[in-house]
Amino acid sequence: MSDHGAPFGHTPDESPTTVVDRIGLLVTNDPAIGDGPLGIVRDAALVLQGERVVAVERAGAAGDRRVDVEGRCVLPGFVDSHTHLVFAGDRSDEFVARMAGAPYAAGGIRTTVDATRAATDEELRALTAHRQHEAWRAGITTLEIKSGYGLDVHHERRCLRVAEELSAQTTFLGAHVVPPEFDGRTDDYVELVCGEMLDAASPHARWIDAFCEVGAFDADQCRAVLAAGAARGLGGRLHANQLGHGPGVQLGVEMGCASVDHCTYLSDDDIDALASSTTVATFLPAADFSTRQPYPDARRALDAGVRAALATNCNPGSSYTTSMSFCIALAVRDLRMTIEEAVAAATVGGAAALRAPHVGTLRPGSNADLVVLDAPSYTHLVYRPGVPLVHRTWQGGRVVGA
Amino acid sequence: MSDHGAPFGHTPDESPTTVVDRIGLLVTNDPAIGDGPLGIVRDAALVLQGERVVAVERAGAAGDRRVDVEGRCVLPGFVDSHTHLVFAGDRSDEFVARMAGAPYAAGGIRTTVDATRAATDEELRALTAHRQHEAWRAGITTLEIKSGYGLDVHHERRCLRVAEELSAQTTFLGAHVVPPEFDGRTDDYVELVCGEMLDAASPHARWIDAFCEVGAFDADQCRAVLAAGAARGLGGRLHANQLGHGPGVQLGVEMGCASVDHCTYLSDDDIDALASSTTVATFLPAADFSTRQPYPDARRALDAGVRAALATNCNPGSSYTTSMSFCIALAVRDLRMTIEEAVAAATVGGAAALRAPHVGTLRPGSNADLVVLDAPSYTHLVYRPGVPLVHRTWQGGRVVGA
Repeated sequence: MSDHGAPFGHTPDESPTTVVDRIGLLVTNDPAIGDGPLGIVRDAALVLQGERVVAVERAGAAGDRRVDVEGRCVLPGFVDSHTHLVFAGDRSDEFVARMAGAPYAAGGIRTTVDATRAATDEELRALTAHRQHEAWRAGITTLEIKSGYGLDVHHERRCLRVAEELSAQTTFLGAHVVPPEFDGRTDDYVELVCGEMLDAASPHARWIDAFCEVGAFDADQCRAVLAAGAARGLGGRLHANQLGHGPGVQLGVEMGCASVDHCTYLSDDDIDALASSTTVATFLPAADFSTRQPYPDARRALDAGVRAALATNCNPGSSYTTSMSFCIALAVRDLRMTIEEAVAAATVGGAAALRAPHVGTLRPGSNADLVVLDAPSYTHLVYRPGVPLVHRTWQGGRVVGA
Repeated sequence: MSDHGAPFGHTPDESPTTVVDRIGLLVTNDPAIGDGPLGIVRDAALVLQGERVVAVERAGAAGDRRVDVEGRCVLPGFVDSHTHLVFAGDRSDEFVARMAGAPYAAGGIRTTVDATRAATDEELRALTAHRQHEAWRAGITTLEIKSGYGLDVHHERRCLRVAEELSAQTTFLGAHVVPPEFDGRTDDYVELVCGEMLDAASPHARWIDAFCEVGAFDADQCRAVLAAGAARGLGGRLHANQLGHGPGVQLGVEMGCASVDHCTYLSDDDIDALASSTTVATFLPAADFSTRQPYPDARRALDAGVRAALATNCNPGSSYTTSMSFCIALAVRDLRMTIEEAVAAATVGGAAALRAPHVGTLRPGSNADLVVLDAPSYTHLVYRPGVPLVHRTWQGGRVVGA
């Protein structure tokens, strides 16, 4: 724990400090600052200046402004490293049919493509901003946002431009599914994705992603997409092993992806590849919930040394939720993570999956992104399933979503 | 659908009417009023007068006061027919241990008994009222509340007096677990429950309940408790078949209980007994979630004609939630109810389990208890898991929990 609010970084900051005081239990995610892997400090205060945390202190610390959280638990804001937030329309009918026994198939994505293409810019912007607001209320302060419901040059760029207004973590997912215009001509579509569509998208994206699955794109097609993106400076991520065993996880590791996402089906070779890499395995249990897939064996992966993240996968087809708390509860109950592992995966794990060093932690230099829970401990995120426990969300030093 | 707001019942009411207008989708739970088993009316208005619904109209109906819900879905307020809302203390440590592999056992209840006995009346009242407020925010307008953490004459009566300040649906659960003072003397404790404790409790209770399970009370002991309660005019309910197969369900039917609760393990004979009775099977999936029990096969029970309810079982040991939405989502995903069956179970099913004719429906004469969802349809309760979708809750014609 630092003794004083020493400014972090280069220039001394003259802006006023805010003390978030009387934190009953603070998760810093820095074992050098507090106890255990979550770096827990009890009876703490966080000193914020501008958009950053400048100090972790004992309760009662001095500052220009004081906010009393009355003993509540404070965590780093949730880092949601996998969302498809830009879309129009609703697929509740498909969901109802699935709950009545119909299987999930990647093809349903086309329904959302039609609705998204038909929406005006203003409609898309309003829908996406509304979802961001909902995510704030759920404690999410970093949102990765993918395209993937445009699937032509114009609409993919349009969706990324909406996304970049809300987040620096934008992902070009032209290779989400083959659009109807390219039925039976997947390789031609991949050529478009890697060429003209990438040209249009890359100024608005940090990442490139592809859906490696039967019914979407095979390993060679995904490799081509990731390589084309890398050549344009986009980092790689991959949808892999959602609906069955496949080559996606090992391809993602081979291509140096920051993250492979879903990982519902993991072979021993997949786990070995992940454990000996810097690629994060991002579990999306709300998607497994909403598609009645089995839950992944995260316990086995974690025991082998795999780095894990948890994300909502917010999208209208397979996981229409912004509730990271719900994902954490499932991760503990059904993926067999410990509560500490799940909380870490939803914060600093997500930050690793996005290679974002200033989020997911609360220590000097971290973004002032935090969640105040209406509970004395993070354990209540699982102990009190379904209860909206987020009292306040702060992003960049300001309350958001209230 | 009635044409006009004709006053229901005996005396004409002169009090002003409130029109809840522009309801996109209204669940009445009355197939005589609307479509399908949920009695759905689109583009509707509800006319309220005093504490009652007086008419279901088309959108645009006239009234003294108008509240525009802008196309949202409106349901009957959730009827939570099984809670243990009066308690002090927290068992998150036990929960954490269980998530790490420890089994659930009924004995943990004693931890809460110690904390509850140690709390002052004011503390108990404040804690319970806080939970009621949380339940309102979750859309719950009828709350059954059990004692069962006092377990002596004084404290059982005390807990029921706190409960009856908040709800007419109070349940005496002296036979929750054997308190430490009676270790090895279960029959002596049952004698106390059926005698002096019942004398003290019955003026404050509508129902009597017992926990029929290995580690708690056997069938003969539960029969004695239910019979003693019936002799004092208390209706019967029973905790049955939570942790394994057992005699509880059939005992509950035999004793004419309004409901047997948990039903996690159901034999063919249990289902036959339920199907040929008026006893409701109340499923508590959040308890199965929080104790890592398997989920009950509600599908099999419903297909056999069993009447079902869903309840939260809010309590600090095995199910610390007030989220009926979470219970509905689990009921569909894991208990294999249809969404319509789950919504009915959480509303009119709960009303049947409490033999409360004026709740769980929205038709002339119903209590003006309703939930306004931030969603176009009740399907979103499952389609959007974990998202707090309750926009407003009305109880007895007034907004509560806001």
